[in-house]
Amino acid sequence: MSEEIQVSGTGPVRQLLLNRPARHNAQTPRMWAELAAAGRALGVDPEVRCVVVTGAGGSFSSGIDLDEMREPAGFLRSLAAHPPGDPDPMMAEIAVAQEAFRWMAGAPFLVVAAVTGVAFGAGCQLALACDVRIVATDARLALREVRYGLIPDMGATHSLPRLVGRQHALDLILSGRELSGAEVVARGIALHDHPAAEVLDAATAYAHELARVPRAGIAHVKAAVDEPDLDRNLRIAGLGQAACVRQASWPE
Amino acid sequence: MSEEIQVSGTGPVRQLLLNRPARHNAQTPRMWAELAAAGRALGVDPEVRCVVVTGAGGSFSSGIDLDEMREPAGFLRSLAAHPPGDPDPMMAEIAVAQEAFRWMAGAPFLVVAAVTGVAFGAGCQLALACDVRIVATDARLALREVRYGLIPDMGATHSLPRLVGRQHALDLILSGRELSGAEVVARGIALHDHPAAEVLDAATAYAHELARVPRAGIAHVKAAVDEPDLDRNLRIAGLGQAACVRQASWPE
Amino acid sequence: MSEEIQVSGTGPVRQLLLNRPARHNAQTPRMWAELAAAGRALGVDPEVRCVVVTGAGGSFSSGIDLDEMREPAGFLRSLAAHPPGDPDPMMAEIAVAQEAFRWMAGAPFLVVAAVTGVAFGAGCQLALACDVRIVATDARLALREVRYGLIPDMGATHSLPRLVGRQHALDLILSGRELSGAEVVARGIALHDHPAAEVLDAATAYAHELARVPRAGIAHVKAAVDEPDLDRNLRIAGLGQAACVRQASWPE
Repeated sequence: MSEEIQVSGTGPVRQLLLNRPARHNAQTPRMWAELAAAGRALGVDPEVRCVVVTGAGGSFSSGIDLDEMREPAGFLRSLAAHPPGDPDPMMAEIAVAQEAFRWMAGAPFLVVAAVTGVAFGAGCQLALACDVRIVATDARLALREVRYGLIPDMGATHSLPRLVGRQHALDLILSGRELSGAEVVARGIALHDHPAAEVLDAATAYAHELARVPRAGIAHVKAAVDEPDLDRNLRIAGLGQAACVRQASWPE
Repeated sequence: MSEEIQVSGTGPVRQLLLNRPARHNAQTPRMWAELAAAGRALGVDPEVRCVVVTGAGGSFSSGIDLDEMREPAGFLRSLAAHPPGDPDPMMAEIAVAQEAFRWMAGAPFLVVAAVTGVAFGAGCQLALACDVRIVATDARLALREVRYGLIPDMGATHSLPRLVGRQHALDLILSGRELSGAEVVARGIALHDHPAAEVLDAATAYAHELARVPRAGIAHVKAAVDEPDLDRNLRIAGLGQAACVRQASWPE
Repeated sequence: MSEEIQVSGTGPVRQLLLNRPARHNAQTPRMWAELAAAGRALGVDPEVRCVVVTGAGGSFSSGIDLDEMREPAGFLRSLAAHPPGDPDPMMAEIAVAQEAFRWMAGAPFLVVAAVTGVAFGAGCQLALACDVRIVATDARLALREVRYGLIPDMGATHSLPRLVGRQHALDLILSGRELSGAEVVARGIALHDHPAAEVLDAATAYAHELARVPRAGIAHVKAAVDEPDLDRNLRIAGLGQAACVRQASWPE
């Protein structure tokens, strides 16, 4: 049985491949479960420093598979079939789906998205859940959830305000507006853009460059950057520094 | 008796008009009370999805009416007449004034500022308290409070760092520097600029576009975007999604 | 004995000079202790409204003195010599070093960095710890800690995400990438750039301009801008306003 997520590589840099190329890597509950499992496995591997997330076949991910809306047994149709309740029985299933990308922000390694082709809806949210993005100049990104009367609930409400501020986050989420790769770089949503054929190489080279930082350094920098309280932030950075100092080789 | 605030329209998009055109919509304690009341009324109307805030007569708002400083019975002169105390008796009156814009950030609908002419002092803070801004290219915005030895205390210390970061927020607040509409777009403070004559139409069209999102979707997206904790953020987005899923019509 | 930190000036604007020009103002534990002491002294002086931080001899600061890594008695080598422990005995020494810049964010006055030449490593973190930055067009800024297998633990993990967002903060911290003065202005890390010979004058003029705001106004604006909760933010701004109102002279 082929897998919808494939993790490959050894040493400090790994690749996480969305592997449904015939469907533009459209997402399914199975893909989400495999993503969550991949996150757990990578998190306990002490060698990993950077993970490059990319899509097979030229597109990053077209978002949730439309069959999950069209088919009565699909994820969204099943959700909708729940009777109301308090607590709403939908929430447990939504929380399981959210685990697919939930681990990235807190992972003790850097997650680099290599985005070509389309990143729509949940595909766009996956790109935003990564720590940094390297994109094709002609990539197409949009939070298309509002087209279907839905909202992005896989993390874009958290990641996007940290990238573009509150106003532009509300605008992009509620309008579903599409941006090109060049535009997301200009707005600070991605780091760099490249011709599509060079994106994966560029992202992999970037991952190798940053993987020179000790794992404890990367992990504590990520944790500190997300800590708004200055004293706690300094303490986290200090703990990371202490770990790095023990491993350092000093200049003569 | 004419009102200083007029709310008009029906259905998902409403207009909130500052209505003292002979005074460039200079603000008074009465206008603040009417704004707070308008916020309460709109908040309990289940149809409202977007509110466009604009000024009558070509200018958004010139800020607090200078009579509130000049006249012994004016708001600021009355404040200054309070004897010191701990707690300071001024704080209760300041808190009442702050209710004028306080409801916008948490309102369960999107608030769109349509800014032409001048937005100075409290007028600028009102524009910043809205969720998004659409401005005239030649609009003039400045936090002029420091000219009078005062500081902006109607929300700019909260909204501006979320738009331009800490450094530029401190600079704009403490310098009182004036920016044009084109400049506030370039700095990410407003979404778009247009010729002055087209601003209200553009803001209204924008409001209608975003009002296609269900009210529960808009409300939960706003709440989530303001929640820094990732788990709580995802839970809020999930609650909004559950409400949207119950209302959705699925593609065939 | 010459001092590594010199504070000069009287009245509302002071200058804080890094004073090891023969070493490009490389930092030592002694300089850090003097910086912390300068912060305590300035904080209790009721006249201070703005402090300009600059370096003697053309460069801001080249970062930690490499002797602190090379010499067995140096700060980092001494740190590394501590046996492991829980709590790690390094943490107490790191916390003392962190006090060097720790006071700037919460100081009741505005701290303006005037950056020429190089600001590397801890020198770059010192510039970032200031409230605003005015830089030479050809200044060179980089968080070089990762070159030595270390991470920035003097505050860059807190200041940088507030200036450039999470993605670019992670990129600059983990890559150690160097930026010119012109580039840091373009990215919003500094306010303005000038020819190197004019930077100190420009920063001093800027400090005098902003020092027209009452000290209570500056202090409360800084505190409010750092308070993410809207109600607490408004309360802090209101307290600052009350203090300003008591000192204001009203227009006729």
